[in-house]
Amino acid sequence: MSLTQLAVAATDQDTPSPRDRLRGRLEQTRALSADLARPLSDEDQVVQAMDDASPTKWHLAHTTWFFEAFVLSQFLPGYVRFDERFEYCFNSYYESVGPRHPRPFRGLLTRPSGDDVRAYRAHVDGALETLFAHDLPDEALNLIELGINHEQQHQELLLTDILSLFASQPLKPAYREDATGAPAGAVAPLAFTAFEGGIFEVGHAGAGFSYDNEGPRHEQLIRPFKLANRCVTNAEWIAFIEDGGYETASLWLADGWSLINAEGWRAPLYFEPAEGGYGQMSLRGFRPVDPAAPVTHVSYFEADAFARWAGYRLPSEFEWERASTGLAERGKTLGAGHLRPRPAPDGPGLTQMFGDVWEWTGSAYLPYPGYKPAPGAVGEYNGKFMCNQFVLKGGSCATPDGHVRRTYRNFFYPHQRWQFTGLRLAADA
Amino acid sequence: MSLTQLAVAATDQDTPSPRDRLRGRLEQTRALSADLARPLSDEDQVVQAMDDASPTKWHLAHTTWFFEAFVLSQFLPGYVRFDERFEYCFNSYYESVGPRHPRPFRGLLTRPSGDDVRAYRAHVDGALETLFAHDLPDEALNLIELGINHEQQHQELLLTDILSLFASQPLKPAYREDATGAPAGAVAPLAFTAFEGGIFEVGHAGAGFSYDNEGPRHEQLIRPFKLANRCVTNAEWIAFIEDGGYETASLWLADGWSLINAEGWRAPLYFEPAEGGYGQMSLRGFRPVDPAAPVTHVSYFEADAFARWAGYRLPSEFEWERASTGLAERGKTLGAGHLRPRPAPDGPGLTQMFGDVWEWTGSAYLPYPGYKPAPGAVGEYNGKFMCNQFVLKGGSCATPDGHVRRTYRNFFYPHQRWQFTGLRLAADA
Amino acid sequence: MSLTQLAVAATDQDTPSPRDRLRGRLEQTRALSADLARPLSDEDQVVQAMDDASPTKWHLAHTTWFFEAFVLSQFLPGYVRFDERFEYCFNSYYESVGPRHPRPFRGLLTRPSGDDVRAYRAHVDGALETLFAHDLPDEALNLIELGINHEQQHQELLLTDILSLFASQPLKPAYREDATGAPAGAVAPLAFTAFEGGIFEVGHAGAGFSYDNEGPRHEQLIRPFKLANRCVTNAEWIAFIEDGGYETASLWLADGWSLINAEGWRAPLYFEPAEGGYGQMSLRGFRPVDPAAPVTHVSYFEADAFARWAGYRLPSEFEWERASTGLAERGKTLGAGHLRPRPAPDGPGLTQMFGDVWEWTGSAYLPYPGYKPAPGAVGEYNGKFMCNQFVLKGGSCATPDGHVRRTYRNFFYPHQRWQFTGLRLAADA
Amino acid sequence: MSLTQLAVAATDQDTPSPRDRLRGRLEQTRALSADLARPLSDEDQVVQAMDDASPTKWHLAHTTWFFEAFVLSQFLPGYVRFDERFEYCFNSYYESVGPRHPRPFRGLLTRPSGDDVRAYRAHVDGALETLFAHDLPDEALNLIELGINHEQQHQELLLTDILSLFASQPLKPAYREDATGAPAGAVAPLAFTAFEGGIFEVGHAGAGFSYDNEGPRHEQLIRPFKLANRCVTNAEWIAFIEDGGYETASLWLADGWSLINAEGWRAPLYFEPAEGGYGQMSLRGFRPVDPAAPVTHVSYFEADAFARWAGYRLPSEFEWERASTGLAERGKTLGAGHLRPRPAPDGPGLTQMFGDVWEWTGSAYLPYPGYKPAPGAVGEYNGKFMCNQFVLKGGSCATPDGHVRRTYRNFFYPHQRWQFTGLRLAADA
Ligand SMILES: [Fe+3]
Ligand SMILES: [Fe+3]
Ligand SMILES: [Fe+3]
Ligand SMILES: [Fe+3]
Repeated sequence: MSLTQLAVAATDQDTPSPRDRLRGRLEQTRALSADLARPLSDEDQVVQAMDDASPTKWHLAHTTWFFEAFVLSQFLPGYVRFDERFEYCFNSYYESVGPRHPRPFRGLLTRPSGDDVRAYRAHVDGALETLFAHDLPDEALNLIELGINHEQQHQELLLTDILSLFASQPLKPAYREDATGAPAGAVAPLAFTAFEGGIFEVGHAGAGFSYDNEGPRHEQLIRPFKLANRCVTNAEWIAFIEDGGYETASLWLADGWSLINAEGWRAPLYFEPAEGGYGQMSLRGFRPVDPAAPVTHVSYFEADAFARWAGYRLPSEFEWERASTGLAERGKTLGAGHLRPRPAPDGPGLTQMFGDVWEWTGSAYLPYPGYKPAPGAVGEYNGKFMCNQFVLKGGSCATPDGHVRRTYRNFFYPHQRWQFTGLRLAADA
Repeated sequence: MSLTQLAVAATDQDTPSPRDRLRGRLEQTRALSADLARPLSDEDQVVQAMDDASPTKWHLAHTTWFFEAFVLSQFLPGYVRFDERFEYCFNSYYESVGPRHPRPFRGLLTRPSGDDVRAYRAHVDGALETLFAHDLPDEALNLIELGINHEQQHQELLLTDILSLFASQPLKPAYREDATGAPAGAVAPLAFTAFEGGIFEVGHAGAGFSYDNEGPRHEQLIRPFKLANRCVTNAEWIAFIEDGGYETASLWLADGWSLINAEGWRAPLYFEPAEGGYGQMSLRGFRPVDPAAPVTHVSYFEADAFARWAGYRLPSEFEWERASTGLAERGKTLGAGHLRPRPAPDGPGLTQMFGDVWEWTGSAYLPYPGYKPAPGAVGEYNGKFMCNQFVLKGGSCATPDGHVRRTYRNFFYPHQRWQFTGLRLAADA
Repeated sequence: MSLTQLAVAATDQDTPSPRDRLRGRLEQTRALSADLARPLSDEDQVVQAMDDASPTKWHLAHTTWFFEAFVLSQFLPGYVRFDERFEYCFNSYYESVGPRHPRPFRGLLTRPSGDDVRAYRAHVDGALETLFAHDLPDEALNLIELGINHEQQHQELLLTDILSLFASQPLKPAYREDATGAPAGAVAPLAFTAFEGGIFEVGHAGAGFSYDNEGPRHEQLIRPFKLANRCVTNAEWIAFIEDGGYETASLWLADGWSLINAEGWRAPLYFEPAEGGYGQMSLRGFRPVDPAAPVTHVSYFEADAFARWAGYRLPSEFEWERASTGLAERGKTLGAGHLRPRPAPDGPGLTQMFGDVWEWTGSAYLPYPGYKPAPGAVGEYNGKFMCNQFVLKGGSCATPDGHVRRTYRNFFYPHQRWQFTGLRLAADA
Repeated sequence: MSLTQLAVAATDQDTPSPRDRLRGRLEQTRALSADLARPLSDEDQVVQAMDDASPTKWHLAHTTWFFEAFVLSQFLPGYVRFDERFEYCFNSYYESVGPRHPRPFRGLLTRPSGDDVRAYRAHVDGALETLFAHDLPDEALNLIELGINHEQQHQELLLTDILSLFASQPLKPAYREDATGAPAGAVAPLAFTAFEGGIFEVGHAGAGFSYDNEGPRHEQLIRPFKLANRCVTNAEWIAFIEDGGYETASLWLADGWSLINAEGWRAPLYFEPAEGGYGQMSLRGFRPVDPAAPVTHVSYFEADAFARWAGYRLPSEFEWERASTGLAERGKTLGAGHLRPRPAPDGPGLTQMFGDVWEWTGSAYLPYPGYKPAPGAVGEYNGKFMCNQFVLKGGSCATPDGHVRRTYRNFFYPHQRWQFTGLRLAADA
C-alpha cells in the first residue's frame, strides 16, 4: 500500500455511524503505523539517535500501550495484558501510572523484540476489535479518539526520529528512495495579505475532536497585521546565511546567540555544504537543497533571527489562526507522499498554511484562559508542558492527513529543530 | 547615613528643574551604591558565589562603566577613560561594544582592586559633575536617566548576590545584624478582590522614565478575575511542604518536576530545618522563618505548583497591572530598611503590591505589540532576553525606592530563585 | 556447534605445518565469532549500552576490517574492498589509518545491516582463503597471527559488552539459559603459598605469539611474597560489604572513595538485592550470587580496598607471573562453557590462575625496559595506552581458549568493572 | 625581609640542640608563609581560580589548622581552639577528622576574614611557643616536623596557585615586579651522562625527616642508562611546537591526545603568542619566553610526547635518584629569589637537578615494597593518592629551601601543569 493510498484510506469517511467511523479510523491509524515501519529493518527500529527522539519500535509499542492502559484495562472486561512488564517499558511520561524506563535509554530495549512488539500490537488490535462488540460509554469512545490522535502524533515523530537516526549515520540511508526529479526552480514571489484588527474568538469549539490545550474557546484582541503568502524558502535562508546572519549578534535572542556559538550552528539542521551549494539529509536521503522549497529544521531562535534580519516578525498563534479562517484544513501532509516540504504553488492568497512545515509563532505555549487539564492520567497529556516552549501551527509533510486543524497547538522548545519546522513572516499592518 | 535616611534622600524631590532633579538623583544613586557596599570587606566584594550572581565590586564598576561607555565618552568632550582595560573587565553583555570578561569568571578579578574601583567611581562621578556644567541634549539626559535606573537594578542585585555568597559560607554571616525582635505572629487572613473584565490600556505612557520593554502602551482584553489581598506566607508554604507538595508530580510542570528531583529541592532556597521548624538565610543572617511573612526565594516552578495545590493560579501581568491601578507605587522597598519581606499589614484592599517580594506572574516575558528596542548598544538592554523567562511585578524589599512602577516588567527564568521572589494568588472571577 | 566443541576446535593442534596451523586457527577463530553472535538477534547486535562497550555487529565488522586493512590490502594483489566506506565505520582507534566514526556513536550504525556485515565477513574470509594460495612473507603471517589474537580479544569484549546491554534492560534477558543447577556451596579454604625473592626473568620470549607489550623479556628483582591459593569469593566480598567496607574511607584510595560516593557504588557491578541475599546479572540471566564463586565485576579501586580490609595487598604483575611459572596455561576459559566464574576446585597449590576472572594486580600498566611499539599502524595497538591503567593477569571465563598466557598483560582503568574482573590476595612473605 | 634573606634564615642551622633547631625552623617556616602572602591584597588572598588551586588565605589557615588539629589539641594541655568552626573550614582531606568545606568552594570563604586568619595564625603561633615550654614526647616533635614540611609544601602551592589566579585575570598582574633584565641567551649544550646498571638501594633512610612515601628503603634493579645534563629548554620546546608536535598523534599517549584536542592545548600552560615569539605568564608578570630557560608548566602527557619526539624517554624515579647520588641537595629553589626557572649554568656534570622545575619521571606513583601509611589521620597524607599519578623529582624555583631531597617523591596527575613542571631526557645506555 503506497503512502498515497494510505492517505486516502486514512481520510476515508464514508462509514455511516460515528461509532463505525471511529472504528474505521482506528483500524486505519493502527495500520498506518505498521506501514510506516515497514521500510525499516528491526535494527533501524530499535536504535535511539538522541534523547529527544525515540526508536520506531518504542513508538509502535507505546501507542499500543496507550490503548491498553487507558482503554482496554478500563473498558474491556476480563482484558489480560499482553505482558505486565511492558507498562514499565512503554509508558512515556505518565507519572500517575507509575515508574518508567528512562527516556534517554529507550534505545537500549532490544527486548522485547520487534516480533514481540508486533505480536503486542496484534494482541491489542484484537482486543480493540472485541471491545467494539460491546456497548461503549462516551468516555471510552473519547479515549479511543484520543488514542487515535495520540498515535497520529507518534507517526509524525516516528518519521522525524528515524530521520535523526539516519542523518547520524555515515552511510546516510534514505527512508524512501527519491522518485521525484530535479528540484523545481520556481516559487511564488513573497507577498502579504493584510488583516483587520478586532476581537475574535479563538480556540476549539464544536463537535470534532481537539486536545484539551486548544480550549476553552475565548476572545482575543488582535491588532491589524499582515501575513506572508507562503513560507520562507531555502533560497531566502541561504541569503540570510550569506549575509552573515549567523555571525550577527544583534539579530539574535541572547540565549539563541549563546546556543549557536556553543554548538557551532551555521545553517539549519542536516545542512551540509555540497557541490554548488548545500545538501540536506531528508527522508529521501541526502539531497541537494531545493531553493524554492520551504526551509525546514530550523529552531525558534533561528526563525526569530531570520525574521528580524528580514525586517519582519513571527506571527502570533492567534494571528495565524485568524488568517487561516476560511481555508480548508488540508495541504501537503503525510498522505501527499512527498516526505519533505514542497515549493509553494503559484496563486493568490495564503498557501502552505497546512502541511509542508510547522510554522513557528511568537506565542509562548501557555494555557488558554480557564484551561483545565482533563482529570486522571490523560490530564498529563498537554498541560504539564506549558513552560518555555513556543506554539507552532499548521502541520508538516509528516503529519498524518486529518491530523491538522486550525486550532491545533503544537509546541517545542526554542532550541529544537529535528521536527519539520519552518516559518512564515508577519508584520504589523 | 542609615538606609532609612537614604530612602528619604533617594526619593527627595524638592529640587526645582528636571535637569537639577536628575542631577540630584544621580548623586543620590551613586552614593547609595557606595553605602550598600560599606558593610562589606574587600574580600566580600570580590567573590562570586555562582554564575548568576556577580561580585559587589563588579556591580560597582559595571554601573560606573555604563556611564563612561554610554554617556561620558559620547557627551563629555575630551573625556579620558580611567583605564582603557576596564571596558573588557566590566562590560556585561553588550555585544556591540566588544568582547568581555566571561560572566562566570567575574569573581576572579582581584585586580583592579577595591581601591582602584572606588577611584574609578570617583573619577566618573567627577566627570559626570563636569558634564552637568555643559548644555546637554535630551539624548544625554535620557541616557543618564537610564544609567540611574540601571544602577538601581544593580543595587538590588548587589544585595541578592551578596546573600547568595553569605549563604554559601559555613559561618553564615549577616549583611546587617538583626535589630528587630521576634517574628510577628499575626497576618491578615487571605481574601480576594474581584475585578471586572474588559479592554484596558496597559504598558507605560507619559513623561516619566520607563524601560523600553514597558511599551508601547496598548490595549489588552482582560477577563473578570480576582486577586488575593496579600502574598502567600511562609506558614502557607510550610503547609504545602507538609502536605507533600514537593512529592506530588501532578502539581508540577514537567520541567519543574525534573528540576526539583534532580536538585533535591524540598523547600524554598536557603530554607534549612531549625529548632521548631525552619530557618532561612537572609541579609540579617540565618533567622527563624517568620510564618506571617511572605514566602520568598521560590522559583516560578514552585510558585506555579503552590497555586495549583491551593486551587488557584498565578495572575497574568496584565491582571496585576490592572489591579494595581490607583494604588500608590510605594511599599516596603529598600528604604524601609527591613532587608527582607515583612508580614502584610491588616486592613482592606490589596496590600504588599509594591515591595516585600517580586510576584511571579503567569505571563511569559515577550515583547508588547509594536515593541522596538532602542537603537544602538542600549537596545541590548531588554529585548534580547525575551525568551523562556516569566514576568514578575511589584518590586521587593531590596528594590531601591523610586524604582518600583506599575508597568515595570522584571523577568527571570522559571528555575531562578535567588532574588526576593514570591507570589500572590489569583483566580477567574 | 556447542561452546565446548568450539573449545576443542580452537585448541586443536594436530595440523602439520605452522602455516597450516595458522590457517586452521584463523578459520576456527573466524567461526567462533559468528557462533558467539548466533544467540543474538540483529537488534541485540546493533545497540551500544555505554561508551566503553561496543555493539556485537561492530565487533564482527571491526575484526574483519582489521584483516582487510592490515593484511589483505597489503598482501593480496588485486584485493577489492567490500565497501570503501567501512573503513570509516569500523576503524577503532588507528589514528594513522585515518578518521573514524566516534566511539560513543557506534551504536547508531543500523546500516550497514547485520546481513551486510555477515556478507562482509564472508567476503573477507574468502579473500583470506585466496591469500593462503599464495606464498606469504613472514610479515603477512605475523599480521594474520595478530589478527587472530585481535579477534579473540574482541570475542571476550563481545560477551562482556552484550552483558552490559542485557543488564541495562528491564526484562533482564539471558545470553544463554542456565543449564546448571543450584550454586555449589563448597570452596577450598583460603591458603597462601610462599615464594622466595631474587632476580627473575619476566616478559615474553621465544617462538610463540605475544603482544609487543609483553616484552622485552628482562630481569626483575622480586622480594619474598606469598600468594593466595584461589580468588576472593562472593562470600568473602559480602562479608566486606556487611562490615561496612563501602562506607569506610580509610580503606580506599582517594579517587576511589570519590567515585563510589559520586556513583553510589555499594556492591560489585550488576549486584542487586534478591531474596535471601544478592543476585547478579550474568550471561545466564539474573541469578543468585554463588557464595563459593569468585567475585567478579569489581574495579581496581574496590579490589584494592578489599585487600586492605582483609589485611593483604594485591600482587604485582611480576609476582603473579613468577608464581604461575610451571602451571599449565589453561583453566576455566570460554571453552569450558560456564560463561561465569566457577568455585575453585579443592586441592593443593594455586588454582584459578588462568580463567574464571581477570585478576587485578597492583602494577601500573607501563612499558617494560626497552619497549618499542611495532612500526606502522599496528604500533598503536598497545603502547599508547600506557598511562593510568593497571595490569590484570590470567584471563577469564570469557577469554577464548588459547588466548591466556603467563606473560599476557591485560589492562583497564581502575574505575572499570564491566569485564570479568576479580582479585587474588598477596602479602609480603 | 627579602626572599634571599628568608632563604638564608630558612636554612640557617647554627642552633644547638635538635629541639631548638626544630623550634627555630618552625618559627622561620611560619614567618615565611606570612612573608609570601605579604605582596598580596586580601582580595588576592581569598579567590580560587580553579578546583586544583586554593586561595592564599586558605593555605595560611589550613597549615595553621594542621598544627592545631594534630599537635596542639593533643599535646598542649588546656589548649583552647581559636574557633571550633575552623576545623570544618580548613581541614583539607582528612576523612577521619570529619566533614569539610568542599574543595571547589574554598574560594567562597570571605569569612573568616584575612584579619581573622592572621589572628588565628598568631593564636596558634603563641600556643606553639607555649608548647615548647613543656617536655615534648618524640611523637609531638615528629608531628611538628611534619607540620613544618606540610607548611612548606603549601608555600609552594601558595605561589603556583596565585599564579593561576593572576594568569586568569585580564590585567595580568605580577606577584613581584621583574628586577632582572633581558633573557639570558646562552645555555649549556645538551649532553648525557652514562650510568651503570646494578642493584641499588633507593628510598629514604637515616635520621633526617622524610615523608612516609619515601620508604621503606629498598633495593631496585636499575639497567644502564644515561641522563641529560640539564632540563629541556624553551627553545627546544618551541622547536617541538614548530615541528608539529602538538598535531602528531603518533607522539602521544591516547589519553593525552584526547586531552590536548579537547582542550585545544598547543603550547605549555600560560604560553601566549607575543611579539617575536611567545610570552608566558609568570610570578613576574607576563614576560617574553627565555629560550635558554627550562620549559615549565607542561603536563606529563606533553613531557612524554616531547621525549618521544626527541628520540629519548623520561627517566624512572630510581634512575633519577641514582644519578643524583653525590650531588648536594641544593639548587635554584625559592630562596634564590628568581620565582621562575633559570637557564642551566655552563659546566660539567648534571645541573639543575634540584630547583628550577620539578622533573616528570616515567614512574607511576605507587607504594614502595612494604610501605605502610602512618597510623591515624596523618596516615592520609600520602598513601591514599597512590593511583593514576606520576612521580616528579628535584623541586622547583618555588620549593622552599631545605624542602628538596634526593628521595622526595612529588606526584601529580598526568594532565596537571599549573606547578613548575618540566623534564629532563633519558635513554637506555
Ligand atoms: Fe505518547
Ligand atoms: Fe548591567
Ligand atoms: Fe580492535
Ligand atoms: Fe595540606
